[in-house]
Amino acid sequence: MRKGLVVQKFGGSSVADVQRIKNVARRVVGYRGKGYRLVVVVSAIGDTTDELIQLATQINPEPSEREMDMLLSTGEQISVALLAMAIQRVGFEAISFTGLQVGIITDSSHTKARIIKINTEKILEELNRGRIVIVAGFQGATLNQDITTLGRGGSDLTAVALAKELEAETCEIYTDVEGIYTADPRIVSNARKLGQITYDEMLEMASLGAQVMQARSIEVAKKFDVPIHVRSSFSEKPGTMIIKEVKRMEEVLVSGVTINKNEAKITVCDVPDRPGVAAKIFKELSVGGINVDMIVQNVSHTRKTDISFTVAKTELGKASKIIRKVASELKAGEVLQDEDIARVSIVGVGMKSHPGVAADMFDVLAKNKINIEMISTSDISISCIIKKQFAEVAVKALHDKFCTEKKQKGV
Amino acid sequence: MRKGLVVQKFGGSSVADVQRIKNVARRVVGYRGKGYRLVVVVSAIGDTTDELIQLATQINPEPSEREMDMLLSTGEQISVALLAMAIQRVGFEAISFTGLQVGIITDSSHTKARIIKINTEKILEELNRGRIVIVAGFQGATLNQDITTLGRGGSDLTAVALAKELEAETCEIYTDVEGIYTADPRIVSNARKLGQITYDEMLEMASLGAQVMQARSIEVAKKFDVPIHVRSSFSEKPGTMIIKEVKRMEEVLVSGVTINKNEAKITVCDVPDRPGVAAKIFKELSVGGINVDMIVQNVSHTRKTDISFTVAKTELGKASKIIRKVASELKAGEVLQDEDIARVSIVGVGMKSHPGVAADMFDVLAKNKINIEMISTSDISISCIIKKQFAEVAVKALHDKFCTEKKQKGV
Repeated sequence: MRKGLVVQKFGGSSVADVQRIKNVARRVVGYRGKGYRLVVVVSAIGDTTDELIQLATQINPEPSEREMDMLLSTGEQISVALLAMAIQRVGFEAISFTGLQVGIITDSSHTKARIIKINTEKILEELNRGRIVIVAGFQGATLNQDITTLGRGGSDLTAVALAKELEAETCEIYTDVEGIYTADPRIVSNARKLGQITYDEMLEMASLGAQVMQARSIEVAKKFDVPIHVRSSFSEKPGTMIIKEVKRMEEVLVSGVTINKNEAKITVCDVPDRPGVAAKIFKELSVGGINVDMIVQNVSHTRKTDISFTVAKTELGKASKIIRKVASELKAGEVLQDEDIARVSIVGVGMKSHPGVAADMFDVLAKNKINIEMISTSDISISCIIKKQFAEVAVKALHDKFCTEKKQKGV
Repeated sequence: MRKGLVVQKFGGSSVADVQRIKNVARRVVGYRGKGYRLVVVVSAIGDTTDELIQLATQINPEPSEREMDMLLSTGEQISVALLAMAIQRVGFEAISFTGLQVGIITDSSHTKARIIKINTEKILEELNRGRIVIVAGFQGATLNQDITTLGRGGSDLTAVALAKELEAETCEIYTDVEGIYTADPRIVSNARKLGQITYDEMLEMASLGAQVMQARSIEVAKKFDVPIHVRSSFSEKPGTMIIKEVKRMEEVLVSGVTINKNEAKITVCDVPDRPGVAAKIFKELSVGGINVDMIVQNVSHTRKTDISFTVAKTELGKASKIIRKVASELKAGEVLQDEDIARVSIVGVGMKSHPGVAADMFDVLAKNKINIEMISTSDISISCIIKKQFAEVAVKALHDKFCTEKKQKGV
């Protein structure tokens, strides 16, 4: 590990206007003044990316992905140049790089490229000159120097991958919230900021609806054991550390409660209960490019069964079309769909050794007269699909049961 | 020469909005359809460059030139990507490149870099695949992959340099006028579009106020004998060819009349007439970064003389301050300045062998009761400084004398 080397990532909202860029510059030089060597990863300014996408689709509704990457990568190039200027303005040395320039080598899967390798010489050279190095997030280039982008949330990935390759002390992710909370503070007023959380818990929370960091970058951080510090761009307070193992004073069963209202449920009724049927359904969806999330199939007592699953609401139309075709081929029954659902989940590594947690969760929902439509569990999370209108009540009740100080100390 | 290989350059106003980008795409594929192999150089969309400069100065009034180049080069990157998408939309293959990607190697004089070398392999490879190659104008990169820009008018230079290296048949410069005219058609209603003009004449006309192409790119074209075709983005009509030698049916004395109202005149009166005085004056101006244009010093009959010169109006304040200090050091007399001037010039290679042209020009001005304040001549041009209010009258009269069909045939 390189002591004193820190990678800091600032998202699009942190650099949304001239004043915020100056603010980020002040934050950065504050750390530089304390002697840290800094690599700063920046996203595109505010809504730049969306505006460029809109411009492209006006010109070509199906733009080539290579050209899309050429276009979108300008967003971060603008913000790194401006941040370097802002840092220079307050008297510190800074130099900006695009992904191509700095040597973030990716495969050629345009718009969703994977990082193959990062050349760190250029960065280390500039750090040794005492400069703050500003790197464009979200982008890289193929060995042939074609510009690529890493997909949504790609700037987090740039930061984590750089932190790994540079053997940084920490990777700081600056965002507009103060860290990871036990629940969304806008819904649960007594939600608490977590001091620490494990990669696994954060992964579950990310995929279950907490939108602070993209799952892919957490996976990479976990794989290479990169310590991540999620904190606020607008406050000096420490945020949440995402690390391998959390040593807590008392054992905590549940680290957080999440909510996700962006899914829809599809049920195929009276599916013939024979081998290969589920495979056929989900293969067709996969070929159609549909990401399926929860899947539930009940044990069947007859020769027929019901299969339910959830998909992103934005893909409901497409999924529904595919599934009606499959259902008719399989001679299955009715296809039902429901957009009025929410997924509430509890997440925590402590659950592994406490099987009673699931029962407690169902009990809380029952006491609040909330019907559970689907259940899905992992090692460290339990999710229930309920009617959307009960989502807030459910989250508050679950948080009250599992996440308040009093409850946790009692475990 | 590579037969059928054409470099086409479209300026910022030709790609100012979605509709115009689509229009350029249609133009380009029209040529591709005729079998030409095309390299298309594009400038930044409309006012993008100015907007980015404004953004930068809000963040740092004196931004570093390296970071300025990082910032500004995004402008062309956006337009090449969009043009490639627009061409793909109408069913042709296209691929875009930044200056760095395509291998336009420059020195490291950021914001005014000079091209050292162009690697043509990548372009030729893509042309051989049948693709239309779109290259970002105005930009390059150092060997160390720092992005550089070539200064105002740099896209013309990119086009001419590419045409030279690729041994293109022609370099077409698309603009919002239909070619080079004998005079500004907004002033002289019977101004004619020239079919051909020599590099030297075009150079004089560019430096004398005709703003179609930057002088530097014409110099390069002249040096390497690259045929340039200046023509309109909005019309299919042929424009003006800029070439080495113009073979005309009849000898033409004057190819065009130009006007420049952007200069101001400074006169230092009663300068001691001794060696080294002029040197001191113009050295101080040069150290101060002032570009001096015309210089006139009369033969002196006494021990004192007057020295007059012109500078860009925008630099008048700075030049005046320097010159007042020098004048007092030299114990010269009064320093006069005049912004109400215009330079009218006639340009033509035919003048070389016709010394009477100057006299004719002065005669035309005299007949129109226009006083001449300064005179300056070159091999192929004669310029007079007159009061600004007479500029239009002078240009019309000179055009009538030298440039109408009837007059030219009579020579």
